[in-house]
Amino acid sequence: MNLPGGEELLELIRLRQSDRNYPDRAVEKEKLERILEAGRLSPSACNAQPWRFIVVDKRELLERLSEAASGKIPGMNAFASKAPVQIVVVRERANLLSKIGSTIKDKDYSLIDIGIAAANMCLQAEAEKLGSCMLGWFDEKAVKKILNIPASKRVELIITIGYPADPKREKKRKPAGDVISYNSY
Amino acid sequence: MNLPGGEELLELIRLRQSDRNYPDRAVEKEKLERILEAGRLSPSACNAQPWRFIVVDKRELLERLSEAASGKIPGMNAFASKAPVQIVVVRERANLLSKIGSTIKDKDYSLIDIGIAAANMCLQAEAEKLGSCMLGWFDEKAVKKILNIPASKRVELIITIGYPADPKREKKRKPAGDVISYNSY
Repeated sequence: MNLPGGEELLELIRLRQSDRNYPDRAVEKEKLERILEAGRLSPSACNAQPWRFIVVDKRELLERLSEAASGKIPGMNAFASKAPVQIVVVRERANLLSKIGSTIKDKDYSLIDIGIAAANMCLQAEAEKLGSCMLGWFDEKAVKKILNIPASKRVELIITIGYPADPKREKKRKPAGDVISYNSY
Repeated sequence: MNLPGGEELLELIRLRQSDRNYPDRAVEKEKLERILEAGRLSPSACNAQPWRFIVVDKRELLERLSEAASGKIPGMNAFASKAPVQIVVVRERANLLSKIGSTIKDKDYSLIDIGIAAANMCLQAEAEKLGSCMLGWFDEKAVKKILNIPASKRVELIITIGYPADPKREKKRKPAGDVISYNSY
């Protein structure tokens, strides 16, 4: 297998964008499974893997989730209902070692871990020529009810997945000089 | 350019591991710059980009940082001093929109964003045939002092980067059945 080199991977990272428009086209099972595998294999603090991925692909549930993703603001995240797949990312309890570390250092490692897994899944979607979008704004209580998620859990992200309908946009990012420095802040 | 397909990217994700042993070999400037670019181009809630990457490559600072990374536990993270480069990831304030969302939804999007950027940088390191390790445990106050980071900031991660000295290990992860479900928790 020809592993991606530095330039190839960086180009993939450049191409990944938040896609908010999807044609009516199903996502192949093997592609979806590789996306989930990319999440499952992600690193995490103390290897706690504090996540659970709920794949939603039933039309009725997708509609109800999209309604919840509007977070009671009409039109907000309305595009989500067009996605043939949504991955709901639930934060699970970290293991004891990670929890102790989080407490001592006053730093929630498990939220960082959620970000790592989400990044890997979205990049994997891009490699599969699929579009994706991470949603952090939604009615969490409603999402829990729709998917039978215990009230004690936190739902951190909904990732929409589907073939992208929009062209690639140029990225808007802070210039390197604003976010990178050497040997001092 | 031959963009990585799904199988190629997943293999890269499989190969990435926490490398805690580095030979005395410098990291090429262009590789390091692509790693930083992978971080800079990362997505974030409301495109807030709440991060700053401090690249440390001066031997004296690397030694002092590694001392701080022991977090006062002798031997802890001692390997860090062998890395020719450490990227210190500082969490910056999110933009107003992201902060309002975080407050309303009681969810710290900026920590998730830090995880996303760190994941992209470590995967980029793997594509560059470099090893990396994310450290979340360190004496944050000491790190701030060494690198002139304002006291009000949070230092979330130190990422060690260097050529890997150890062979690839098999990954230990929860089985798919424990972390993935369909249409219900």
